[in-house]
Amino acid sequence: MSSDDLNKRIAKYLDDHQKDYIQRLSDAVSIPSVSAWPEHRPEVVRMVEWTKSFMETLGITVELADVGEQKLSDGTKLKLPNVILGTYGNDTAKKTVMIYGHLDVQPAQLSDGWDSEPFVLTERDGKLYGRGSTDDKGPVISWLNVIEAYQKLNEPFPVNVKFVLESMEEYGSDGLEDLLKSLKNTFLSGVDYVVISDSYWLGKTKPCLQYGLRGICYFFLDVECSTKDLHSGCFGGTIHEAMTDLIAIMGTLVDNKGHILIDRLYDEVVPLTLEEEELYKPITFDTAAYCSEAGVQSTIQSEKDQILMHRWRYPSLSLHGIQGAFDGCGCKTVIPRHVIGKFSIRIVPNMKISTVEKLVENHVQTIMKERNSPNKVSVKLEHGGDYWIADPNNPQYVAARKATVAVHGIEPDLTREGGSIPITLTFQEQTGKNVLLLPIGASDDGAHSQNEKFDISNYMNGMKVMSVYFQELAKL
Amino acid sequence: MSSDDLNKRIAKYLDDHQKDYIQRLSDAVSIPSVSAWPEHRPEVVRMVEWTKSFMETLGITVELADVGEQKLSDGTKLKLPNVILGTYGNDTAKKTVMIYGHLDVQPAQLSDGWDSEPFVLTERDGKLYGRGSTDDKGPVISWLNVIEAYQKLNEPFPVNVKFVLESMEEYGSDGLEDLLKSLKNTFLSGVDYVVISDSYWLGKTKPCLQYGLRGICYFFLDVECSTKDLHSGCFGGTIHEAMTDLIAIMGTLVDNKGHILIDRLYDEVVPLTLEEEELYKPITFDTAAYCSEAGVQSTIQSEKDQILMHRWRYPSLSLHGIQGAFDGCGCKTVIPRHVIGKFSIRIVPNMKISTVEKLVENHVQTIMKERNSPNKVSVKLEHGGDYWIADPNNPQYVAARKATVAVHGIEPDLTREGGSIPITLTFQEQTGKNVLLLPIGASDDGAHSQNEKFDISNYMNGMKVMSVYFQELAKL
Ligand SMILES: [Zn+2]
Ligand SMILES: [Zn+2]
Ligand SMILES: [Zn+2]
Ligand SMILES: [Zn+2]
Repeated sequence: MSSDDLNKRIAKYLDDHQKDYIQRLSDAVSIPSVSAWPEHRPEVVRMVEWTKSFMETLGITVELADVGEQKLSDGTKLKLPNVILGTYGNDTAKKTVMIYGHLDVQPAQLSDGWDSEPFVLTERDGKLYGRGSTDDKGPVISWLNVIEAYQKLNEPFPVNVKFVLESMEEYGSDGLEDLLKSLKNTFLSGVDYVVISDSYWLGKTKPCLQYGLRGICYFFLDVECSTKDLHSGCFGGTIHEAMTDLIAIMGTLVDNKGHILIDRLYDEVVPLTLEEEELYKPITFDTAAYCSEAGVQSTIQSEKDQILMHRWRYPSLSLHGIQGAFDGCGCKTVIPRHVIGKFSIRIVPNMKISTVEKLVENHVQTIMKERNSPNKVSVKLEHGGDYWIADPNNPQYVAARKATVAVHGIEPDLTREGGSIPITLTFQEQTGKNVLLLPIGASDDGAHSQNEKFDISNYMNGMKVMSVYFQELAKL
Repeated sequence: MSSDDLNKRIAKYLDDHQKDYIQRLSDAVSIPSVSAWPEHRPEVVRMVEWTKSFMETLGITVELADVGEQKLSDGTKLKLPNVILGTYGNDTAKKTVMIYGHLDVQPAQLSDGWDSEPFVLTERDGKLYGRGSTDDKGPVISWLNVIEAYQKLNEPFPVNVKFVLESMEEYGSDGLEDLLKSLKNTFLSGVDYVVISDSYWLGKTKPCLQYGLRGICYFFLDVECSTKDLHSGCFGGTIHEAMTDLIAIMGTLVDNKGHILIDRLYDEVVPLTLEEEELYKPITFDTAAYCSEAGVQSTIQSEKDQILMHRWRYPSLSLHGIQGAFDGCGCKTVIPRHVIGKFSIRIVPNMKISTVEKLVENHVQTIMKERNSPNKVSVKLEHGGDYWIADPNNPQYVAARKATVAVHGIEPDLTREGGSIPITLTFQEQTGKNVLLLPIGASDDGAHSQNEKFDISNYMNGMKVMSVYFQELAKL
């Protein structure tokens, strides 16, 4: 049978079983596996068990890896959910693909503003609403559904597959990096390609492959003015208030055009080449849709290419908030004694975390010297994650491009993401192989928002792309 | 009997009963009458009942005034505690003094950092620690203890007294202003003087009388950038973030010397005269103690008079915090959709609230025009309260000065307060009479802090001053 015929048979089988796939996703969504809620940990474990059972019915060998305990803020410890290590096929004549995904979800409650119960998968207008539908239960189940389809059709699977399915992704992937490092010479050895479907198309209609992610440097800017909170009536006007210093410093970080005002911060950013510029030209991007999805009036940049570059290849700085200040409703006339400003810088090739850290420190010191304030001020890099960049002309990317053309009839856009998926870098480092980000959800899926959804068409086409992608890999 | 002899007898009686007074304050403090906690409302009511009983044993006629309901944030309604209206004596040959105080307290829990249970009055080194000890249960009970002492000694009381004791002071005095307006021609008519003991000395050792309070204009600066919270990875660098605008505007309000940068804001401030400057000279003020009490490194001004003037007779601006931004621990990479900056301006003679409001609006508009941001920005005066100023040479002040000299052997400082006690102005308006602020607690009592305390010496001397003050009033 030609591979075209096979693809048609698989596609027909998938189409014929749409109802079953929706039911399966519904079963998964009904388990509220919220990793951020310690009291929901049994539900996370139940989700791991559910997935393990499903995988085992497909003949996938499953091992549960213990990744230790999580330390809660009250000091108690809680067992982390096991990581699923799955092995499907062991044919040395075949390529081995490692698939990563996660089974935990973001918190959700109806009262957050959902139009239907978040843990009841609800179909409206061809969209499946529910927490985890697109992030990341839908994609994980898609991979498994594809394996099932080959089995039902008695077709040999084109590649060996290994699975790493964790359940703490939405809460920092506790323990996963150490686990992967420990598996470098065992479970991870022999892997030829790594693929991750845990991101989203650039828009709602055109598929894309992603070859880059920005990193992040998250800073805590700490200002202390007094040993206790003070009353603004008694002390206002006579003391150097911590908030005045903090707001002043935070106000010097970024201008109204999004340009970062920290001296020399752009020095390490790779210059834009004409060749790179060309990469942006074919990308379909609907600025109006982007604005309406975010619910903003307008973007800072007006040109499409410029908008994308500022999402992907230039650093950005966001002010997230302040810890320790008055944050409630109403009027409170407090002078907070100790406030911590939170801001982060998205970093891009070839910015080094250590350089960014040093430049931010210098900046804060310079401003404080000008202010001549007696308050204790310090800035610390609370968290740093490197950017990631892959070669979009790597054979794995070419295979995925072919699969996309076969299913969607169109070349996928080659894009990047503005955020970080730190595990991408870990997989690249521990396997030494190419990592592909293969999103199947749409840009408006609202992964971490109210009314998260997964379009049925994305679910179905996603599986078809996955299937062809496996076959294309087998041809390499 | 000469008044000197009487004063000696009263003083001796008070000294002999110190233990009883401490026990009485202990009983009052043991009732956790926290007005800010709706579920504690029964305790507030219990405190009202306790006080009513005590007053009735002294022969004070007590009426409980219903001031309606409080609307909670969840929409439900809760009955406000009754206001105690007390009448003691009705001799038309005597002066009538109206005493205001409050029976509710600030929230407190051991875990806030108290060294002993906040609702168990605990004596250490001559200080009585407990929530409400100095604010305002101690002073209220002091007035009543003095009446009791005259009775026990079979001495006629020098004046008629009226009491207004509310129990929502720490939560905005809901309903009190309306009540006082309604009582203008009944309960409040015939009042000759109003006295309030609900503030503190300027330092720890020298008594003072207060003749001025700053007012306040509390602003909400509202910035909205999008219809939902956004992820800084996906949107950072391409959109006008609400926090960037908010922090930028908040950063233009006040400089590092505490000088307010809003155009023309100082225009209405009364110019400093040589005469007024003289008033500051005799005031005892320990800058080092002020700093150590607040736990700050240093003050903005180095001269004593300048510090006091910036607390009392110049406006100040404090940045309190931001509602809607990330305010928790840890790192969250959110771009908040809607943030509300909270700041307030303390106002002084002759600043008009309406002028301040207009100038702040102009300022925000000017800055936003420069920023050229598409975000929705508005600033609104959420709460305004006028300054208050009295004549420190009014006969009531002279009486209190004499009483202070009689007990402490020293002229009290004539001071102002930097904060507002809005009810002061209401009493002045509704009675048309002079209002005296007669603090008996010390500057380090920590009224709204952990380890609030009331020195036994302040308690005892406070009652003695009150007693002589009544007699001096009778002589007018
Ligand atoms: Zn995800
Ligand atoms: Zn997610
Ligand atoms: Zn008070
Ligand atoms: Zn108070």
